[in-house]
Amino acid sequence: MPRHNVRQQIIDAGLKVLIEKGFNGSGVQDITAAAGVPKGSFYNHFESKEALGAEIVDVYGRDNPRRALLGDTSLPPLQRLQAHFERLNANFTAADFGRGCLLGNFSAELSGQSDLIRERLASLYLNWSSDLAAVVAEAQGDGSISTKAPALDLASFLLDAYEGALLRARVEKSGRAFDRFMTVAFDQILV
Amino acid sequence: MPRHNVRQQIIDAGLKVLIEKGFNGSGVQDITAAAGVPKGSFYNHFESKEALGAEIVDVYGRDNPRRALLGDTSLPPLQRLQAHFERLNANFTAADFGRGCLLGNFSAELSGQSDLIRERLASLYLNWSSDLAAVVAEAQGDGSISTKAPALDLASFLLDAYEGALLRARVEKSGRAFDRFMTVAFDQILV
Repeated sequence: MPRHNVRQQIIDAGLKVLIEKGFNGSGVQDITAAAGVPKGSFYNHFESKEALGAEIVDVYGRDNPRRALLGDTSLPPLQRLQAHFERLNANFTAADFGRGCLLGNFSAELSGQSDLIRERLASLYLNWSSDLAAVVAEAQGDGSISTKAPALDLASFLLDAYEGALLRARVEKSGRAFDRFMTVAFDQILV
Repeated sequence: MPRHNVRQQIIDAGLKVLIEKGFNGSGVQDITAAAGVPKGSFYNHFESKEALGAEIVDVYGRDNPRRALLGDTSLPPLQRLQAHFERLNANFTAADFGRGCLLGNFSAELSGQSDLIRERLASLYLNWSSDLAAVVAEAQGDGSISTKAPALDLASFLLDAYEGALLRARVEKSGRAFDRFMTVAFDQILV
């Protein structure tokens, strides 16, 4: 098997393991075991667990299906925003609230520990917020959302509030926090 | 020194160490070293690191100065809510965004790992939300906030959104997320 496949296997397995068990809760061996590759091969591909973590943040941001959904102009912009958050709700609910979002988890766990990962997280926040802001701006353009607040501010607030709601949903093992988020977001903020 | 002082020293040190380094990022030895007590003494007082973690969540909720501030009826309720969040902003900013809130950090790191701690976190969320909701209800009573949404829903949404804003502030090492939170909370939600 060519080297780049081992590398990809480690990234795929790392994404799962690190979301489920946390960065500090999982070792290189957990990741290579999940990838089905020899432990020794890890350091042929990554300098450290931190380097893998940083790359995984980039992959998580880049390969996320949100872009396709938010860019689907066959739906009006407000409906696209709603569908985006409903899809997230459905995914986390289907996983019985057992795992979180890599972005939120790493932000809580690693902001004070790794500047490398922290900077990648900052890029991911900005990219995701910008994707949402483009749709908010479109809705401001067609008059379905007021232009009182800048689109990027509204979008960034919503993303932060969603990450917070997810923390609570996981603790309560219940979607009540998602329901509250949808109500306040679409009745009081995106108006 | 009587035994209960060692216990308290471990709790005090544990609170600091676990907020700074995370639950899985710190060992019992880090905590006893920070407490200045022999490592062996830990298990005279706590069954496990998990048991200490659960107790620390309770302590963090109980001894928090928010209750005094939210209960200070010399200020109108909306001002009290504002002062509450401004105080949190100031504390995290003064710490250069280097540490988070134990509630948010543990929610991200431990919801999937420890049911014991998860249940204590759920109680803390409920207590904190209820403290906020009492003040929201007071503001609804004097007409400064609309009664359209139930006080506990608004309060719970705000707490979740705040925990999310804090995650982003730590990643960005900047108070912009706090500024956005204050604007949206007090211009669009508590209205």
